[in-house]
Amino acid sequence: MKLMHVGDLHLGKSLGDFDLTEDQEYLLDQLLGLVEKQSVDAVLIAGDVYDKAVPSEAATRMLDYFLSNLAKRNVYVYMVSGNHDSDERLNYGSDLFETNHIFISTKYDGNLYKQTLKVGKDEADIYLLPFVKASQVRHFLPDAKIESYDDAVRAILDKADIDESKNNVLVAHQFVMGKSEDPELSGSESLGTQSVGTVEKIGYDCFDKFDYVALGHIHSPQQVGRKEVR
Amino acid sequence: MKLMHVGDLHLGKSLGDFDLTEDQEYLLDQLLGLVEKQSVDAVLIAGDVYDKAVPSEAATRMLDYFLSNLAKRNVYVYMVSGNHDSDERLNYGSDLFETNHIFISTKYDGNLYKQTLKVGKDEADIYLLPFVKASQVRHFLPDAKIESYDDAVRAILDKADIDESKNNVLVAHQFVMGKSEDPELSGSESLGTQSVGTVEKIGYDCFDKFDYVALGHIHSPQQVGRKEVR
Repeated sequence: MKLMHVGDLHLGKSLGDFDLTEDQEYLLDQLLGLVEKQSVDAVLIAGDVYDKAVPSEAATRMLDYFLSNLAKRNVYVYMVSGNHDSDERLNYGSDLFETNHIFISTKYDGNLYKQTLKVGKDEADIYLLPFVKASQVRHFLPDAKIESYDDAVRAILDKADIDESKNNVLVAHQFVMGKSEDPELSGSESLGTQSVGTVEKIGYDCFDKFDYVALGHIHSPQQVGRKEVR
Repeated sequence: MKLMHVGDLHLGKSLGDFDLTEDQEYLLDQLLGLVEKQSVDAVLIAGDVYDKAVPSEAATRMLDYFLSNLAKRNVYVYMVSGNHDSDERLNYGSDLFETNHIFISTKYDGNLYKQTLKVGKDEADIYLLPFVKASQVRHFLPDAKIESYDDAVRAILDKADIDESKNNVLVAHQFVMGKSEDPELSGSESLGTQSVGTVEKIGYDCFDKFDYVALGHIHSPQQVGRKEVR
């Protein structure tokens, strides 16, 4: 089973007055080329799909192009929303897209979204954790002690009751830190849209039950804590 | 074969400060109830699906709800864009939705979009004509003499080469007039978003090859010219 992990596409982003549409279209075509060349079975998209809560027309056209071309190639897609995305807008069509093997989670509703992916004899449980706020989680899990963002994510994962005997993959959009070190920022994360501060970071060890964690949010490719948390 | 014809949902519309979301949700549920009660096979949505080119989150949620509930009931959907819709935004997901029997046309590309609907022994060719501007049509049909909007629509329909031996249905978003009389306005059409004037109106007789014409744009339910042009 071959998974491709991407995140923070930020479709529709411009640098000052400079429109990145052409560059982003080129990038998506490169990804589609890689998917084909590497015989990728599934693409994991770890949030900040769009750059803005109200995506531009070009941005919606690009995502439409990317998803429909993956579907044409029979590639499965697992996508979560990031802090830049509007839950409602990114959620549009998600029920209908499932017939095309495109699975989208933009809202935590008390249950962690899970899909089992089968490729030949291989099998993996893929969990989708969209960007959430601690207050939203408290609403659905009133009995959990949630004082920090880290607590919130741990409460969600506890509730999910993950079967460790399976191959478990998580797609999430989080600011994750290692044992002592912070992740390496690229300078383009626009973290200002979420509250800043250590409470918003979560420890990599809360993902211990997962064999692979496909993260978004921090733009530099890297591992955090252990090599399967990326 | 039973078709339901709706138009000008204007999802996301507000009246001054008064938000119509609750009323529009109620309306969509009434439509879904009617679809079930009347065993409707297909719903034709004749443009101005959204009220604004940039639909609100509530508007996208409502359309998502409506389409996915029609798909769940195995009802076919044929939808075109109106002058209030953004082509790109309403087009999002359209390729993928076809597996759910939801057919959307938001752009004329030189060929009139056509789908054959079969229900038991009945068959109909359903054509989708999105809201277009004469200049767009000229681009695709450079040899046609297009001086007015009426010319543009006639050129599109001529090019489409409609087989009159079939049952033909057209879904369109147009300002259509009868032999001498104008349609009866409801006062809520916001016609200002398109050029005003007689050149923008088209004669009902250009639809002569169609057995039923499902129009949007003018809000009062009525026939124009003959009873099958509605």
